[in-house]
Amino acid sequence: MAEEEVKDLELMDKIVSLCKRRGFIFPSSEIYGGINGFWDYGPYGARMKRAIENLWWHEMVETRDNVEGLDSTIICHPRVWKASGHLDQFSDLMTDCKKCKSRYRVDQMADPTTCPNCGSKDLTEPREFNLMMKTFVGPVFDEEHTAWLRAETCQPIFVDFHSVRVATRQKLPFGIAQIGKAFRNEINPRNFTFRSREFTQMEMEFFCDGEEGMEWFEYWKQQRINYYKNKLKFSDDFFRIYVHEKLAHYAKAAIDIEVKFPFGWGELEGVHHRGTWDLTRHSEFSGEDLQYMDHDNSRKLMPTVIETSVGLDRTMLALLCRAYDEEKAATAKEGMDEDTRVVLHLPPLVAPIQVAVLPLSKKLKEPAYALYKEIDRHFRCEYDETGSVGKRYRRQDEIGTPFSVTFDFDSANDNAVTVRNRDTMEQERVNVTQLRDYLEKQIEA
Amino acid sequence: MAEEEVKDLELMDKIVSLCKRRGFIFPSSEIYGGINGFWDYGPYGARMKRAIENLWWHEMVETRDNVEGLDSTIICHPRVWKASGHLDQFSDLMTDCKKCKSRYRVDQMADPTTCPNCGSKDLTEPREFNLMMKTFVGPVFDEEHTAWLRAETCQPIFVDFHSVRVATRQKLPFGIAQIGKAFRNEINPRNFTFRSREFTQMEMEFFCDGEEGMEWFEYWKQQRINYYKNKLKFSDDFFRIYVHEKLAHYAKAAIDIEVKFPFGWGELEGVHHRGTWDLTRHSEFSGEDLQYMDHDNSRKLMPTVIETSVGLDRTMLALLCRAYDEEKAATAKEGMDEDTRVVLHLPPLVAPIQVAVLPLSKKLKEPAYALYKEIDRHFRCEYDETGSVGKRYRRQDEIGTPFSVTFDFDSANDNAVTVRNRDTMEQERVNVTQLRDYLEKQIEA
Repeated sequence: MAEEEVKDLELMDKIVSLCKRRGFIFPSSEIYGGINGFWDYGPYGARMKRAIENLWWHEMVETRDNVEGLDSTIICHPRVWKASGHLDQFSDLMTDCKKCKSRYRVDQMADPTTCPNCGSKDLTEPREFNLMMKTFVGPVFDEEHTAWLRAETCQPIFVDFHSVRVATRQKLPFGIAQIGKAFRNEINPRNFTFRSREFTQMEMEFFCDGEEGMEWFEYWKQQRINYYKNKLKFSDDFFRIYVHEKLAHYAKAAIDIEVKFPFGWGELEGVHHRGTWDLTRHSEFSGEDLQYMDHDNSRKLMPTVIETSVGLDRTMLALLCRAYDEEKAATAKEGMDEDTRVVLHLPPLVAPIQVAVLPLSKKLKEPAYALYKEIDRHFRCEYDETGSVGKRYRRQDEIGTPFSVTFDFDSANDNAVTVRNRDTMEQERVNVTQLRDYLEKQIEA
Repeated sequence: MAEEEVKDLELMDKIVSLCKRRGFIFPSSEIYGGINGFWDYGPYGARMKRAIENLWWHEMVETRDNVEGLDSTIICHPRVWKASGHLDQFSDLMTDCKKCKSRYRVDQMADPTTCPNCGSKDLTEPREFNLMMKTFVGPVFDEEHTAWLRAETCQPIFVDFHSVRVATRQKLPFGIAQIGKAFRNEINPRNFTFRSREFTQMEMEFFCDGEEGMEWFEYWKQQRINYYKNKLKFSDDFFRIYVHEKLAHYAKAAIDIEVKFPFGWGELEGVHHRGTWDLTRHSEFSGEDLQYMDHDNSRKLMPTVIETSVGLDRTMLALLCRAYDEEKAATAKEGMDEDTRVVLHLPPLVAPIQVAVLPLSKKLKEPAYALYKEIDRHFRCEYDETGSVGKRYRRQDEIGTPFSVTFDFDSANDNAVTVRNRDTMEQERVNVTQLRDYLEKQIEA
């Protein structure tokens, strides 16, 4: 293995370990040995996940008059997945080793004729395996009562398109967005939370006149790129646009926004021009005419769809991978003995804790805690009085807290505190009356 | 049927109809004929649901140093449900009519010996039907690969108790909270969203020394009652406390917070003293010792659990039922021809739209829209310029918007707007520079 690859694998191990140790992410049902492809978000993880979710919702729904929110069920009518094509086509090729009984995805085998486990060449013919997760609704467990956990959050958006449009009196162009869980029975879940069996999607479907489809595609592509650059602070060397050349027959254009993970480039988001495919299929399969009546021009049209589809778990993993750093020289600066500072350079907007409040001594608990309760109303805050200030800085560095506010023995006299910046490790004296403004500006910068 | 009952049924129909018409809640997969027991939240519904969720999260997690958040998977290791008792005991008694093949829950039959459909007395022996929803994880659909959708969000909290405690360095007493979907294969889903098959729970498990268990039970009971009174504005005649007299063998105390729905009293929340039952069971079944090491007193103890468990969908339904009103006299006051004003008196904290901005004429669009964009940063807002102001008031009344801000021809001169109160229909002139403060005070009152 090349040196670079070994380093990347080590880096991934370190991130997984930090996530467990600090309560960001750990295996689901861990005391029972875990369940492959399922991950729980602990206290810091849940905070960070919520922060990303709220940021997306704010950017995509709350600040836009022409995008409506939706919150649909995970289990839908089974015909939804017949119309979407998932029941017939959402599958991977699988093969079994007849000797050792291992099962593989054919596209992930280095040599599809040889078992990677026992080396046998006696493999079954590759066959389709559907990735939808099955369940039964109602009191009988038979074909008629079979239903599926949604494999993507966008299909219920198409199904509810007409109801939402009528209730909101929206005219084309407008969008519908939702955030929620989706499930895929991946044969080989891998790369931590990147490919798991239960995950959260944030999707927006924008409905427009086909004539304006490519314009809107360009608009949303640019909007989403701006989001990664300006809000999540992804630098140009960390993300790239992959332009699909092979398109589905109904699609006019498709790009993926990819990020560089330690295990390689991986997709975070797709921006896709899906033509009239989805609404046409659901019209056919449901018997409901989902065309739009354009009263201004006295015509009916089937809206064209531009989709922006994000993986929330992947976004968080990308942020953690990008943020992780080990700094040797930095520690001496703050007089610490340890030789390495582990730090998450997370963007302040999505850091689980934005501001830590630290009294220099436990004797200062009362005023420091009062200050904490005050600023906790405006930011995600944590109060910590255990151990030396240096050690507390290190702990906050490790969870990515951008600002630590230290209340010291002068604070009561000069009504000021010291704000320590995680990235520069610089300290600045800030008057308490200015603190909220100061932090707000830094966090939104 | 008694007159009162007929009125209640009519009221329920009106609420369901308003929810559909205004895009609060409608059947999932409606264009496919729906799927029994599953409901989607449309734009206003999703906003309101998010508002309730955020309020609970804020009250129960964000403002408390001793409660940590969690976000675990819906699919857990199957042994979790063996330990919790769900696989063996979470079931209802069912019977089939041998003649017409209808299936019933025995406890819901007026006469358990007679088919309510065809009157036949030829029924099967009642038998247990498990309410857990089944799925398969991995590439084979057999017993070994069977998993279950969680029937409640609290079990993963117990399973993750140790990991969360270690990562956060919390000491007893402390709590862990999470919000998420849960699934129950109800035989007869009914009463709109009150008893559905897919729903959202908001649960908090508080871990403490058994000696202090009853004190904490009383504390949380009071906290939760205060929440319903002060935040959700439930008046005393609308909710009641049901004290459980028959308790599970491990439980020390249990109450339900019940609300008066048109279809009768129904549970919104349970506050339960669960003893050491849950952690003891998961210790036994997982082989991991989940006891707490109390270093201060050099002893080990199995924490006692106080649970607060809310149904989010039920909370929203209760708010809608409580809020719905039809006022005959009120309309004349605003010079409207219609003879009835339909209004949702929703608490401003959870109303889907808190402030509507309405220009008196389309000519005022520019300054009115600018004002809207300004206050939309602080509240859930909507801009509407269609139709007469009177009709726009009615529309906002129907979705429960507590404040409508009208920008008129004087506004540009006196820098003031008219704020119309949904409940009193009074109008007040407010200077634009004071508007944010004014609305903030009213909303948080």
